Amino acid sequence: MAKPVRISLDGMGGDHGPSVVVEGAALAHERRPDTEFLIYGDEAQIAPLLAKQPKLAANTKLIHAAVAVRMDDKPSQALRRGRRVSSMWMAIDAVKRGEADVAVSAGNTGALMAMAKVCLHTMAQIDRPALAALWPTVRGESVVLDLGASIGADAQHLVDLAVMGAAMARIVLDIEKPTVGLLNVGVEEIKGIEEVKAANRILRTVDLPHLSYHGFVEGDDLGAGTTDVVVTEGFTGNIALKTAEGTARQIARYLREAMGASLMSKIGYLFARHAFAALREKMDPRRVNGGVFLGLDGLVIKSHGSTDGLGYCGAVEIAYDVVRHDLMSRIRDLVSLSQDLRTAETRSAAAETEASVASDDATL
Amino acid sequence: MAKPVRISLDGMGGDHGPSVVVEGAALAHERRPDTEFLIYGDEAQIAPLLAKQPKLAANTKLIHAAVAVRMDDKPSQALRRGRRVSSMWMAIDAVKRGEADVAVSAGNTGALMAMAKVCLHTMAQIDRPALAALWPTVRGESVVLDLGASIGADAQHLVDLAVMGAAMARIVLDIEKPTVGLLNVGVEEIKGIEEVKAANRILRTVDLPHLSYHGFVEGDDLGAGTTDVVVTEGFTGNIALKTAEGTARQIARYLREAMGASLMSKIGYLFARHAFAALREKMDPRRVNGGVFLGLDGLVIKSHGSTDGLGYCGAVEIAYDVVRHDLMSRIRDLVSLSQDLRTAETRSAAAETEASVASDDATL
Repeated sequence: MAKPVRISLDGMGGDHGPSVVVEGAALAHERRPDTEFLIYGDEAQIAPLLAKQPKLAANTKLIHAAVAVRMDDKPSQALRRGRRVSSMWMAIDAVKRGEADVAVSAGNTGALMAMAKVCLHTMAQIDRPALAALWPTVRGESVVLDLGASIGADAQHLVDLAVMGAAMARIVLDIEKPTVGLLNVGVEEIKGIEEVKAANRILRTVDLPHLSYHGFVEGDDLGAGTTDVVVTEGFTGNIALKTAEGTARQIARYLREAMGASLMSKIGYLFARHAFAALREKMDPRRVNGGVFLGLDGLVIKSHGSTDGLGYCGAVEIAYDVVRHDLMSRIRDLVSLSQDLRTAETRSAAAETEASVASDDATL
Repeated sequence: MAKPVRISLDGMGGDHGPSVVVEGAALAHERRPDTEFLIYGDEAQIAPLLAKQPKLAANTKLIHAAVAVRMDDKPSQALRRGRRVSSMWMAIDAVKRGEADVAVSAGNTGALMAMAKVCLHTMAQIDRPALAALWPTVRGESVVLDLGASIGADAQHLVDLAVMGAAMARIVLDIEKPTVGLLNVGVEEIKGIEEVKAANRILRTVDLPHLSYHGFVEGDDLGAGTTDVVVTEGFTGNIALKTAEGTARQIARYLREAMGASLMSKIGYLFARHAFAALREKMDPRRVNGGVFLGLDGLVIKSHGSTDGLGYCGAVEIAYDVVRHDLMSRIRDLVSLSQDLRTAETRSAAAETEASVASDDATL
């Protein structure tokens, strides 16, 4: 049997802190018994919770951490207060020291990103990390990145995102050669910003063996699941993610109001309540919880801060999967390969871009 | 009684062409009888349609146009083929020549934008045009801009967008002093891109008399209706809009599937069918159709290409409203006022930004 997956947990992260972390870990351990945990945090709070979960406790080491990063700490504050001594830092550091294969935190995203960067550094070939997550679509799920780890991206970074996203899709969605789309404002090749157009040219020119490049996609292709992977820089990706979440909440509210509006609609709701339950489950953000920080020299998973035990369990399961399928090595290999392949092509694509920009300018 | 509002229509624009245009105009004329129309397009197609709408025909002049811009024409193609001779160009040109107060087209957005820019030019104080539209929220509607007319924006342009969006909200939403939010990836002031941070500093510092600056908002504030106006540059705005549309379609499909899944859910659907009809109406994109191009020396309204007569009528009604309330003069006055007010402030804000960037860099 393979070695157990060793997962370090920030015991204090998230809106609900240790109770959700321990409950989620216990659930994940039931589903994936070949796991071992390191939980960092306030021993006085966590030990009693752990005592109620004997199976989990038998496979967990609890390590006291004096500081908990707050959900509203700015990244710089979190680093000042929490470097080396916070549960978040210590969970990440366990990955760096090789004591854990992956770290999970439901703590604040900015702080987690900053600490992960400072503690783990980026991979040799990647200049900036990215946050990737599963996006529910009408076809199933897609990997979308970057959801806000880095702001702005040049063409090279967008291509790296495509490579890393495809590696993740292969593991998490089990697709041999995932299709990849580049988020843009129109499918015509003349639209969009220079970096996106240049990345499109590279991806079209360089035939990367492990992904199938689809071309540009637009915002509505996210929910339609047009491609298995959607690539964009972090500012746009974060706004798209939150816009979709907001729209889902808005429609859920419309639906509640409509169903409570009259006696007839209430009776209708009763008859259709199983259908509504199925719909709620489909729209349940806990089903797909767990953003993966990619491009760092170590694996860190971000769980939603407001999630419950079930949602936290989902994040731990993603952590398990990316370790079991060795996402790190796969990304390292594929990024190297793709960078070798495109070195020459990139130069000619860049030259083409300049020529094309000049001709676009001349047209209007 | 006030002079009638004179509206020029691109008779060939949209997926369904003249039939939707004439039907929508007839409906709008019923609702706002003090309108006169100029319809440009293929006389052989439009004249018979118009003959069936005698009330509309009595207030309409039909002018033959030899060329129709295609929905998939690139902007440069559209200009090459359609300059001076297409129904789209001629409808815009009627505004320039003072024969119409506003132009409406359901034709392709990129072509419409390019033609409007080339034909009308931007206002003296505005360097680039924007596309604004009403976004349905749980509180009602908000004005969101730029939805894709210009890609990228510096701080000055973002402030201009705030001013123009507030002017539109005052007219279309009838709010004396609209609240304005700046779309960003987090509410903490340290996040986001430099241009957005600098615009935030200007809007905080300069007390613009006709708007109430709220600060940063995130993607999920769009559907929540946190502010009356949401400002962002066109790339992000277009992706947010299409992501929201895609999410709404995705959930509508989940809902249909859930309601058709079993006999019980079908019975439930029958009982609640009025509630579902109300919900459908609430989610109906035709309710709020009509993007307004702002910052040009003339008014141009973009209708959705795939809309029907009712939706097209909505776009014509928005055209009517912005003329009746003299959006052009209001924007000119407010932009001048705000530029005077902020000239001095901007300089100090820019200096502050540099100082703050230096200190941010030092922190991490």
